[in-house]
Amino acid sequence: MHKISLAHGSGGIETASLLQSVIFDNVPGWLKKVGTGLGIDFPDDSAAIPVPGGYMTVSIDAYTVNPIFFPGGDLGKLAAAGTINDILMGGGKPIAALDAIVVQEGVEVEVLKEVVDSMIGVFKEEGVALIGGDLKVMPSKHLDGIVVTTAGLGFAEKPISDKNITPGDKIIVTGPVGEHGAAILASQQNTPSHEFKSDVAPLTKLMIPIINEFVDHIHAARDPTRGGVAMCLNDWAKNSATTIVCNESDIPIREPVSNLCEMMGIDPLNLASEGVAMLAVAPDVAEQVLELIHRHGYRDARIIGEARKSTSTLDLVVLKTLIGGYRILEPPSGELVPRIC
Amino acid sequence: MHKISLAHGSGGIETASLLQSVIFDNVPGWLKKVGTGLGIDFPDDSAAIPVPGGYMTVSIDAYTVNPIFFPGGDLGKLAAAGTINDILMGGGKPIAALDAIVVQEGVEVEVLKEVVDSMIGVFKEEGVALIGGDLKVMPSKHLDGIVVTTAGLGFAEKPISDKNITPGDKIIVTGPVGEHGAAILASQQNTPSHEFKSDVAPLTKLMIPIINEFVDHIHAARDPTRGGVAMCLNDWAKNSATTIVCNESDIPIREPVSNLCEMMGIDPLNLASEGVAMLAVAPDVAEQVLELIHRHGYRDARIIGEARKSTSTLDLVVLKTLIGGYRILEPPSGELVPRIC
Repeated sequence: MHKISLAHGSGGIETASLLQSVIFDNVPGWLKKVGTGLGIDFPDDSAAIPVPGGYMTVSIDAYTVNPIFFPGGDLGKLAAAGTINDILMGGGKPIAALDAIVVQEGVEVEVLKEVVDSMIGVFKEEGVALIGGDLKVMPSKHLDGIVVTTAGLGFAEKPISDKNITPGDKIIVTGPVGEHGAAILASQQNTPSHEFKSDVAPLTKLMIPIINEFVDHIHAARDPTRGGVAMCLNDWAKNSATTIVCNESDIPIREPVSNLCEMMGIDPLNLASEGVAMLAVAPDVAEQVLELIHRHGYRDARIIGEARKSTSTLDLVVLKTLIGGYRILEPPSGELVPRIC
Repeated sequence: MHKISLAHGSGGIETASLLQSVIFDNVPGWLKKVGTGLGIDFPDDSAAIPVPGGYMTVSIDAYTVNPIFFPGGDLGKLAAAGTINDILMGGGKPIAALDAIVVQEGVEVEVLKEVVDSMIGVFKEEGVALIGGDLKVMPSKHLDGIVVTTAGLGFAEKPISDKNITPGDKIIVTGPVGEHGAAILASQQNTPSHEFKSDVAPLTKLMIPIINEFVDHIHAARDPTRGGVAMCLNDWAKNSATTIVCNESDIPIREPVSNLCEMMGIDPLNLASEGVAMLAVAPDVAEQVLELIHRHGYRDARIIGEARKSTSTLDLVVLKTLIGGYRILEPPSGELVPRIC
């Protein structure tokens, strides 16, 4: 019989196909969203429920990262920042969050407290209210460590949905990719890790100005977490029936990250970021948006490519390689890094 | 050093005190709720965020029940019904839900599908949209089974908060208590279990008419899950600074449940229900509310007691016992049944 494998959790094609068969195919269309809102008819970072004057946007994510404390952050910071970023990528301004903690019997209370303090610290800095939660304990033979699930709530006058990319749109990446994935990978492999530090951070101070000034021109927004840049671009191409063409040399990747990936036989474009946004932007404002991003301190932001009309029934992602050829960037597949987020 | 124990997860005083020290004490007042809404300043089944015309209500719960399939239901049904009930107990009409599934590597896809189908089945029947979710896989050495966290969203013109009980209010229980807890306990103990069946069920068809007709007179509502009737009444007494006096003989408990509890040395008033509501109702409408409840098929519903003015600084729950004496009903403490919900 068919069993769940780690690949089903890696955020690549196995995850997508499992969700399709187990969930999406079994929920009737009228139950996939609320009214004119956004839901699992086009799965995205956050959903949207119409309310007078706009939309309440909402997200949920379970964080299982191992180790709980990693260079650059910890489980609590990851949960808070990830939830805030999911709301932002849907065009929402983060308002509130709820947390459900499942903790193993025997964990030091101080360890739990450190994780929770870190989560609350991010919410405090960002002005996001913590309005509810749950806590369960599992016997140590049933769970190892701590799992934190957070739900986020925001308000969007106009939600950003990833299905609106049109040919000509420019693809922007706001910083070096794969940093979180590399940090977790290095931690799990016990590779000396002063080179690697997760980029986990809320993107509020960057995204709110972009939303305020350019929301009508942002045709897609996503933080490339599990599945990385590769999954994000492939989802976008598929959802919008375009071909996305990027210059490999324009995608910012730090050398230690690409070296680690080469050593491990992993494509850095499959690795998770936790403090990077990808945007698909109408071409006439792309330079202005990029300038705004640079002005906010994201110096490594680049336009990495553009959407083009699909010339076949295949909605592909094509990379122009460093040596001038072309390669197809497939969505990630197989087991990458377990418990990366 | 102080470690997490199973008692911290049993929904009794250890849970309350852990949440107080780890979470509530560390979130500043202005971040405990949104505007005039409800949040963790008075922790309740659901929180509320003001929107034009009323409140968006929201809840989160992690479901870790073991076994996944139990007499009367399964993990999926429990997650869906529990979330719907949390929204209802806050005075909201359930609209939408999101799910975050964490599953162990090696679980049969068919088992996951059965759990999810069961969850979706409840949402379908109740007209609750499933608008988002997440799925993670953990290696089998880190997790045993499946954990489902669900967030619920509803709309309330007027949320029900549990802090409004006033002396004279009648306490209503809508059905026999402890049924879910007894079913899980019997399953975990391998006690022949045809006697025991979880009562897990959404309470929408009962609660919507109550909310529509009597919301101004409902001063508290809760489904007595973890911690049971005992925790619910003690929280209510504490939050409203009243003494709650109940007749033990009026609290509906089926004989097999009380027998099992006697055998195991457990107070049935500490055991979880998953298809029962407890209400604190203004005395002048209590009989009408009870009548409505009976009319909807909840034949075992009873008025079990009332709130009284506290005559001391102790806000206690007092039971008039079967033999005519009085005993204090303490909030549950210690390890009861692990992974009950």
